[in-house]
Amino acid sequence: MTRPVYLDCDTGVDDSMALAYLLASPEIELVGIGGVHGNVSAAQGVQNTLRLLALAERTDIPVAVGANDPLVGEFAGGAPHVHGANGIGNIEIAETGAGPIDEDAAELLLRLAREHEGALEIIAVGPLTNLALALERDPELPGRVAQVTVMGGAALVPGNITPVAEANIAHDPEAAQAVVTASWPVTLVPLDTTLANVLDEADRERLCAAEAPIARAVGAALDYYFDFYVAEYGRRCSALHDPLAAAIAVGGMLPRTAPAVPVEVDVTDGPGRGQTVCDLRGQRLGPVDREGATVRVVLETEGALAPHMMERLLALRAPDAEANVA
Amino acid sequence: MTRPVYLDCDTGVDDSMALAYLLASPEIELVGIGGVHGNVSAAQGVQNTLRLLALAERTDIPVAVGANDPLVGEFAGGAPHVHGANGIGNIEIAETGAGPIDEDAAELLLRLAREHEGALEIIAVGPLTNLALALERDPELPGRVAQVTVMGGAALVPGNITPVAEANIAHDPEAAQAVVTASWPVTLVPLDTTLANVLDEADRERLCAAEAPIARAVGAALDYYFDFYVAEYGRRCSALHDPLAAAIAVGGMLPRTAPAVPVEVDVTDGPGRGQTVCDLRGQRLGPVDREGATVRVVLETEGALAPHMMERLLALRAPDAEANVA
Repeated sequence: MTRPVYLDCDTGVDDSMALAYLLASPEIELVGIGGVHGNVSAAQGVQNTLRLLALAERTDIPVAVGANDPLVGEFAGGAPHVHGANGIGNIEIAETGAGPIDEDAAELLLRLAREHEGALEIIAVGPLTNLALALERDPELPGRVAQVTVMGGAALVPGNITPVAEANIAHDPEAAQAVVTASWPVTLVPLDTTLANVLDEADRERLCAAEAPIARAVGAALDYYFDFYVAEYGRRCSALHDPLAAAIAVGGMLPRTAPAVPVEVDVTDGPGRGQTVCDLRGQRLGPVDREGATVRVVLETEGALAPHMMERLLALRAPDAEANVA
Repeated sequence: MTRPVYLDCDTGVDDSMALAYLLASPEIELVGIGGVHGNVSAAQGVQNTLRLLALAERTDIPVAVGANDPLVGEFAGGAPHVHGANGIGNIEIAETGAGPIDEDAAELLLRLAREHEGALEIIAVGPLTNLALALERDPELPGRVAQVTVMGGAALVPGNITPVAEANIAHDPEAAQAVVTASWPVTLVPLDTTLANVLDEADRERLCAAEAPIARAVGAALDYYFDFYVAEYGRRCSALHDPLAAAIAVGGMLPRTAPAVPVEVDVTDGPGRGQTVCDLRGQRLGPVDREGATVRVVLETEGALAPHMMERLLALRAPDAEANVA
């Protein structure tokens, strides 16, 4: 039996790749997707999600609009310099007839957790506002969820939006604090490891020539995203933030160094706001799980993500081809 | 001409080694020493300093008592589990007739800066309260100081007193913020590099058999200190926090990776309190100095400190021997 997964995202370029990867992963079944502010507005992200799903002929998956603002403050306009004005590298994907469901994302998550009691897995690759709202509405939620995997934070590397804060967490620190302190097992996939996993131009070109339209769309969207990373890596390529969280959640990638340690999100207004303060003291001799810690921080993975990611995305069939085969 | 140095310390075991090293360094001349709360009370630290100087027959160097409390809050009792109850590993050094001077440490620093206008170098290996008080009393101080070297902070490694804060900074974050934002050139020597420089048991035993009484005292004091570091390194040894800052200040050790970047100390009451927030973004391709940044953060040194440290401490002559030669 495949494992039911709720995906929460701010679809973005790397979110798009994570989505394509999850559609290509037989271990899990996407039973619902929530959209949240972040790389783009919640509405724009949901539009991107719906169009990508249409490319894959997977409009059967319910998509819900979620929070467009963090718990404190307001949506600040996203990251058009990273993801393009439309969030998917300014590529055009035809509009689809399908729209979001009537439930908001937190309601969808709560309903799915009841329907898949104890089995539902959450993958969150945007700010954690929807998850925090769901926790607020039903504090019993953690007991119905098998695991939560979050792309977010920076443990022992610089942040990407402040010297110490990563964008997903910094865009809603209060929500992130609620999620990392709730009584569910959280796997945090921070910049420490996502920045160490890179996709290069040769792979991007193979994606552009892939059979599945969604894989080709991801390849095209990466074109804009690659430019942003020249300042970081000195060449056109991209970090694999959201795809790595997705792959770790699915089990396609295994953590190598991933101690369970106390984690707290800085919700002050100081220079540390949005930092994931992970207590990684005493780990010099090797990873040590700290008693009672519910958050596992992935500092290193077994092997590189790119080959695994490429294998899955290139194995995706065009929907028509599948129809013909059937 | 030797360079005049004011040392500010909370004498401690590793402070003792830094002091012995500075006495052994022909490049500089210790023109004054201030004591501050930290590893021990300010008064206890000054007692330790005076007795170590007596061992070296260098009671000509003026020693001043400084702040026993941070700018905000109170001295919390120091770190007897690290440095022993008396701060020098519970070894006994005979009391000396010499006492501290009448000036407090900030006054001594201000006077020395006037006497050595533009040439005075500051080495601070404890909390930065005395320096902050001096800045408060005379905002013109930075213009009279050639350079400030601080042992403190943690940039991309865990803290040693909270998950993100190092003890010297965390014991007076407000003072540290004043020091890193003043208009003098600061070299920050954080845990990133001090924890990478270790002294082992074989070297400690050589110190215990050294000619100079102060070198033997340092070797003896390290015995207690070595026990503390077993949890960190898995063996009896010690990090070389204060000695590394001293060696970098003198020029005996050269920084390899040490970009000048914006640095801010977290003075909130959140989980980041006392963190040195160093903006190390954009340094993946190699160290890049940021325009206008006055704080250089030493992330890596050329070579290891221990051999250089041993060479200098073992070259120290017993005061009597020197007298006989003369």
